[in-house]
Amino acid sequence: MFTLGIDYGTNSVRALIVRASDGKEYGTGVVDYPSGTQGVLLDPRDHNVARQSPADYLYGLQESVARALKQAVAQPDFDVSKVAGIGVDSTGSSPLPVDATNQALGMLPQFQSNPNAQCWLWKDHTSWREAARITELAGAHRPQYIAMVGSTYSSEWWWSKIWRCLTVAPDVFAAAHSWVELADWVPSVLAGVKDPSDIVRGVCAAGHKALYNKAWNGLPDKEFLAMLDPKIADLRDRLYDNAYDAATPAGALSAEWAEKLGLPAGIPIAVGAFDVHYGAIGCGVEEGTLVKVIGTSTCDCAVVPVKTQPGDIPGICGIVEGSILPGFFGVEAGQSAVGDIFKWWVEGVCGGSGALHGELTAEAEQLKPGQTGLLALDWNNGNRTILVDQRLSGLILGQTLYTTRAEIYRALVEATAFGARAIIERIREYGVAVDRVVCTGGIAEKNPMLMQIYADVTGCTMLVAGSSQTCALGGAIAASVLAGAHTDFEAAQAAMTSLREERYTPIAENQAVYDELYGLYRDLHDSFGGLNKQADLSGLMKSLIDIKYAANS
Amino acid sequence: MFTLGIDYGTNSVRALIVRASDGKEYGTGVVDYPSGTQGVLLDPRDHNVARQSPADYLYGLQESVARALKQAVAQPDFDVSKVAGIGVDSTGSSPLPVDATNQALGMLPQFQSNPNAQCWLWKDHTSWREAARITELAGAHRPQYIAMVGSTYSSEWWWSKIWRCLTVAPDVFAAAHSWVELADWVPSVLAGVKDPSDIVRGVCAAGHKALYNKAWNGLPDKEFLAMLDPKIADLRDRLYDNAYDAATPAGALSAEWAEKLGLPAGIPIAVGAFDVHYGAIGCGVEEGTLVKVIGTSTCDCAVVPVKTQPGDIPGICGIVEGSILPGFFGVEAGQSAVGDIFKWWVEGVCGGSGALHGELTAEAEQLKPGQTGLLALDWNNGNRTILVDQRLSGLILGQTLYTTRAEIYRALVEATAFGARAIIERIREYGVAVDRVVCTGGIAEKNPMLMQIYADVTGCTMLVAGSSQTCALGGAIAASVLAGAHTDFEAAQAAMTSLREERYTPIAENQAVYDELYGLYRDLHDSFGGLNKQADLSGLMKSLIDIKYAANS
Repeated sequence: MFTLGIDYGTNSVRALIVRASDGKEYGTGVVDYPSGTQGVLLDPRDHNVARQSPADYLYGLQESVARALKQAVAQPDFDVSKVAGIGVDSTGSSPLPVDATNQALGMLPQFQSNPNAQCWLWKDHTSWREAARITELAGAHRPQYIAMVGSTYSSEWWWSKIWRCLTVAPDVFAAAHSWVELADWVPSVLAGVKDPSDIVRGVCAAGHKALYNKAWNGLPDKEFLAMLDPKIADLRDRLYDNAYDAATPAGALSAEWAEKLGLPAGIPIAVGAFDVHYGAIGCGVEEGTLVKVIGTSTCDCAVVPVKTQPGDIPGICGIVEGSILPGFFGVEAGQSAVGDIFKWWVEGVCGGSGALHGELTAEAEQLKPGQTGLLALDWNNGNRTILVDQRLSGLILGQTLYTTRAEIYRALVEATAFGARAIIERIREYGVAVDRVVCTGGIAEKNPMLMQIYADVTGCTMLVAGSSQTCALGGAIAASVLAGAHTDFEAAQAAMTSLREERYTPIAENQAVYDELYGLYRDLHDSFGGLNKQADLSGLMKSLIDIKYAANS
Repeated sequence: MFTLGIDYGTNSVRALIVRASDGKEYGTGVVDYPSGTQGVLLDPRDHNVARQSPADYLYGLQESVARALKQAVAQPDFDVSKVAGIGVDSTGSSPLPVDATNQALGMLPQFQSNPNAQCWLWKDHTSWREAARITELAGAHRPQYIAMVGSTYSSEWWWSKIWRCLTVAPDVFAAAHSWVELADWVPSVLAGVKDPSDIVRGVCAAGHKALYNKAWNGLPDKEFLAMLDPKIADLRDRLYDNAYDAATPAGALSAEWAEKLGLPAGIPIAVGAFDVHYGAIGCGVEEGTLVKVIGTSTCDCAVVPVKTQPGDIPGICGIVEGSILPGFFGVEAGQSAVGDIFKWWVEGVCGGSGALHGELTAEAEQLKPGQTGLLALDWNNGNRTILVDQRLSGLILGQTLYTTRAEIYRALVEATAFGARAIIERIREYGVAVDRVVCTGGIAEKNPMLMQIYADVTGCTMLVAGSSQTCALGGAIAASVLAGAHTDFEAAQAAMTSLREERYTPIAENQAVYDELYGLYRDLHDSFGGLNKQADLSGLMKSLIDIKYAANS
């Protein structure tokens, strides 16, 4: 038996076919989204805009599956009739408006060129005003809502974006019968759902981004939503009352899409989830394991058994029952930009290509901790955890007239490591065990310098997931459980996931230097992030110079 | 009648032959120093090291004069016998050790490859510990000394460097019969001085850098110097008791050097001065005029009549009688890196050449004030005025994932403009009139974008000196006065200096944005610079985003 995982990333979509018994990979197809700048529709006048074309999603779906199948059929023991289930994950919160027939508005002729009718990609930050207002309103009127998402509602999330659309494009809002997370929309398209009220919504997106909670009967109540705008309260009736975990199917493959994809009609489709949540499953997440999906941004996932009833953790975006594994609370944190910062530096500023990433890494690898004399904040795309504030920006200090691009590159890597440490310290402080860290994503596999720095900065041994396609693998695992190949997720993970041999262990002398640098990072972090409004930064540059001298001596 | 000005810059030496009646330029010769990195001896392990080879100075002297003469003799009304005087300026404080025959130690075989025996270039910052200790000792025991130099003694100055040499290279210190500023050494070589006690020392270097003041009988007393080290107290006997302004000759051209240069023997040599001080004369400095020499670093010069008795100004490196014009106190301030920061960014980080400077300027010129969303501190080489602290470093903040190299380039230009404004505000606050600003240097002539930004940030109309070689011209003016072509400096300046036609006037709407940005710059400046140890920086990144939005709308 085989299952198919489909993973919608920020720049491309990936299809993965695996054997359900052991997770062996039979075929992969990756398709770049054809529209915009590397798949993202930007606005040069406003760096907060990030949209995506729904037409790209359907094109990428068909094309990536075709490519994966082409590889799989070349193997003797594969047969397309043995494909028994599909699991889909995507970025999020990435909501898109649909009409009454579940058609994406952005694909209709009258809205095709309207950016507000497209999918509002996770990293769109245009709705920061709305996010701040939701935080304020919930704080005053529904403290339980805001406590659930770490005390701050983000501009990356569902309600902020929908409200923003109402503000800037009331015509689009009026034409939208409903709104759907990309992670739920693709399964609904595959299942042939023609009425948005029939879409099976995943609790992962609902619980982490839409303030959905069984404790208050699902989505926020209409009285609260009316404080945003009465039209949003009206919209609630056209959304959903229930959301489901990965044990529930989103439907069965429709004849139309079975034909388009060349797969058996009627096979189960798992409920959609965010990429990193399925990625955590593909990394073998369990209690005590922190999974880091290190890509353009980083997402951190952990699980806590339902019976332990974890409380809210300030600055942690959400703790949602069933959002990762059925039977566990999912704990999610993240950094809004990681690979994106390196890419910005190497390609955007230094004007280099892929080769320059390698050159700068090789040069930066020769440096000792502290030797750059630099300190940076990893906030070029805001700070998701632990400040939950998109209206922050990048910072680099310590430059002399001799500072090199490789030194700055290293400082940016270290900045993301310090951000990672802030997250680990925060969740540990609130009782979430972190006994091991399993990383996944291209950066974890290809950048040993970064991994060693992360080990040295966090003090944790860094492990790397066996599969290079853990998000899609997680979708395939969910599909395998649904299709009956395994009794439950624990058994499926045991059979289908693995670890690479390499592991990165903290080096004591590096840790000592990074402990000192992390203290300085926190001085900057807490000052510019608003945690300390009486900061004494007068000695910071001198401390960096002292650390640099010590590293050179 | 013609006179010759010789200007020792950081990377090259320039000789200029002018007609004494009107300053018309007859010949120029520029020679790059052959040693080190663009003439500077560096140490890759310590960015504070910057030395220069004295052999380069003599080679450059002979070669640059030869080139200038070659041009001059091509003109029909020139005759080498009509060259009637020489004026020399140099960077500073750039002291070098000499033996009992006024030979530079760095040219002796046993010291040729010893960096500590070479000239300690102005931007050498290895002696920051010594500078801090001198500040401390003078504060406790000789407050009048430290009040004279803006409350902080710098690692760029005479005593710090000599003390540092004693600490790290006692053999060099022991071999040094005396120490001489480069600006005094070259005239002494031209005059054939064979005993360091015969060197005529300029009050410009002595007063601004060596704590020389008539009020306490010249250099610091031996009791104070013994607190540094008894050997430094001993050295005082082999230095000097008097220093002179530009009305005094340093000697007459020796037969040996007349032959080497092909000039008439016996013509007067003006007392040596720092480049910017002669540059200020070449720009027509007078009461109410601020001269800005904008180069790798920037130096600001103003004069105040002796009769008005200006007090000390905190953070202003020195107010010295006669240091610029006889009969006036010279007021000097500066920024440790200006062109050097742009060069670092364009060449060091972006890996570009001269052409990229032009490209980035063209791109940055299209941006409106505030549109980059960035804010930078111009401290890559420390802060000279108004913080007098070399142990500071560069800072850039406000970066998104879409920030371009041209935006950062503009932010760095703006940072230097904010630094310039801080200086103007400080000296005005203490009663130094700034009615007009005359700029000189390649950047002032070639970068209209920078000049307009300076006008918009400072609120002052920016003028540009008529000569491109104002430092050498100032030396030639001093030589012309000595040679009797003019009755005094005022008359010589009136005849020999001019202004370019272009002038940069502040634009009101730009000023409004920059006033706001300058406030944020001062928040950063005062926080990292130690003026405010309880800084609230929590709103700074958000303010920049608001300003950027406003600029884009």
